[in-house]
Amino acid sequence: MRVRLVVAYDGRGFSGFAANVGVETVGGTLGAALERVLGHPVVLTCAGRTDAGVHAWGQVVSFDTTRQPLDVAALQRSLNRQCAPRIVVREADSVPDTFDARRSARARRYRYTVLNRPEPDPFLAATTWHVEAPLDLAAMRLACDPLVGEHDFSAFCRPPKVKPDVAPPRLVRRVLGAGWHDLGDGRLRFAIEASSFCHQMVRSVVGTLVEMGAGRKRAGEMRGILESRRRARAGQLAPAHGLCLWEVVYATDDTVVGG
Amino acid sequence: MRVRLVVAYDGRGFSGFAANVGVETVGGTLGAALERVLGHPVVLTCAGRTDAGVHAWGQVVSFDTTRQPLDVAALQRSLNRQCAPRIVVREADSVPDTFDARRSARARRYRYTVLNRPEPDPFLAATTWHVEAPLDLAAMRLACDPLVGEHDFSAFCRPPKVKPDVAPPRLVRRVLGAGWHDLGDGRLRFAIEASSFCHQMVRSVVGTLVEMGAGRKRAGEMRGILESRRRARAGQLAPAHGLCLWEVVYATDDTVVGG
Repeated sequence: MRVRLVVAYDGRGFSGFAANVGVETVGGTLGAALERVLGHPVVLTCAGRTDAGVHAWGQVVSFDTTRQPLDVAALQRSLNRQCAPRIVVREADSVPDTFDARRSARARRYRYTVLNRPEPDPFLAATTWHVEAPLDLAAMRLACDPLVGEHDFSAFCRPPKVKPDVAPPRLVRRVLGAGWHDLGDGRLRFAIEASSFCHQMVRSVVGTLVEMGAGRKRAGEMRGILESRRRARAGQLAPAHGLCLWEVVYATDDTVVGG
Repeated sequence: MRVRLVVAYDGRGFSGFAANVGVETVGGTLGAALERVLGHPVVLTCAGRTDAGVHAWGQVVSFDTTRQPLDVAALQRSLNRQCAPRIVVREADSVPDTFDARRSARARRYRYTVLNRPEPDPFLAATTWHVEAPLDLAAMRLACDPLVGEHDFSAFCRPPKVKPDVAPPRLVRRVLGAGWHDLGDGRLRFAIEASSFCHQMVRSVVGTLVEMGAGRKRAGEMRGILESRRRARAGQLAPAHGLCLWEVVYATDDTVVGG
């Protein structure tokens, strides 16, 4: 039986989603809790392998279990008793065996939030990047346009490790939408949707956009940076804690999960 | 020269506002930062001595300094460099010598936020009390009515230490307004304004109201609990992290500070 979870987490204190030896990860913590409940080893598949410190509201996870019958509502409560509030299972459902949290996903939606005012905020410090200098929102909006469509995002991606005798992975991605929303209280929120993302792509794009908003780069440079495929031309990486995997869109029926 | 600060803080990790030996307090941390900038000892007066773990958005602090001239904007920046994001100075002004953060305050406004839905939320865990069982908002609203007005709040206050040969402090307080707001996303927010509050009063009132919302006490009992002046009749204390000192109203010109 295959199960799908929608999972929110506070990324601080976790070395990202993917299970790794010797560090605390969301996947490792959640997988260990699942194995305690189910009594057998569990292999988790996730829609977006978020980096260290990155949050999620609508991360989607799938796994198989041999436990039958399985009360998914009871499973959800048990996971939340073990993992909340740092990791919260927002939904749990049994799904067809054809569902795969990663492969079935048609698009991922990320949000990045900047707090753009002189004073910081103790209650937003965990989820926003505080930028004191006033940002030119019009410039940051203009610079989003060249991102939409299918492009090689090498300029905005951490280069993958080159393996001998293996062709380097393509960094071509299809961005379906990208834009800034002024939340009216000093918070500026960047929302981006893409078929998939390469490593550090959203943080690198946001870092570049904020340099344009601050006047350190021109908005008109975005297209040239993208086409250059040279990482040195992009801006600094925006900090991880402003980023959140917001929701995932699935192919089968255009269902949006999370959000 | 007298200075007024409006201060927000995340109460987690602090043993309340008031400076105490051997524990980390908001007043102690802020006072030490002030003394580093001003180069002389500083005595802080605050509008509300928040307890351990209680947050503030609009705490008001006053103190005297002999440093003249004093650039209050530079002082604010320096304090925020030292203390943010846990403690943030939102405003800094020079004020007349007649202003006293505590004595000049005409009323304090507190907010208490309950997250009332089955699943917790990693991003609200620091600032809300998660109550899974559905609460009867109408009952909790009804039970607010008897609180308004001038009453002896002994039933909702931690009894002060009795000192020999000293009359015990009066626990009569004047509540100017109290009510619940449904924020529509599972959050229920209790707002209360009073001339002043006695120790643990808001948390004790909220704990009692939530027991009424959960059906463990009847809303109609509120008046009797209040009149009994017996703490054993009130509900359990609501946890500190749902409480926030929101803003302070000042006598001189009805100015609301904070908020």
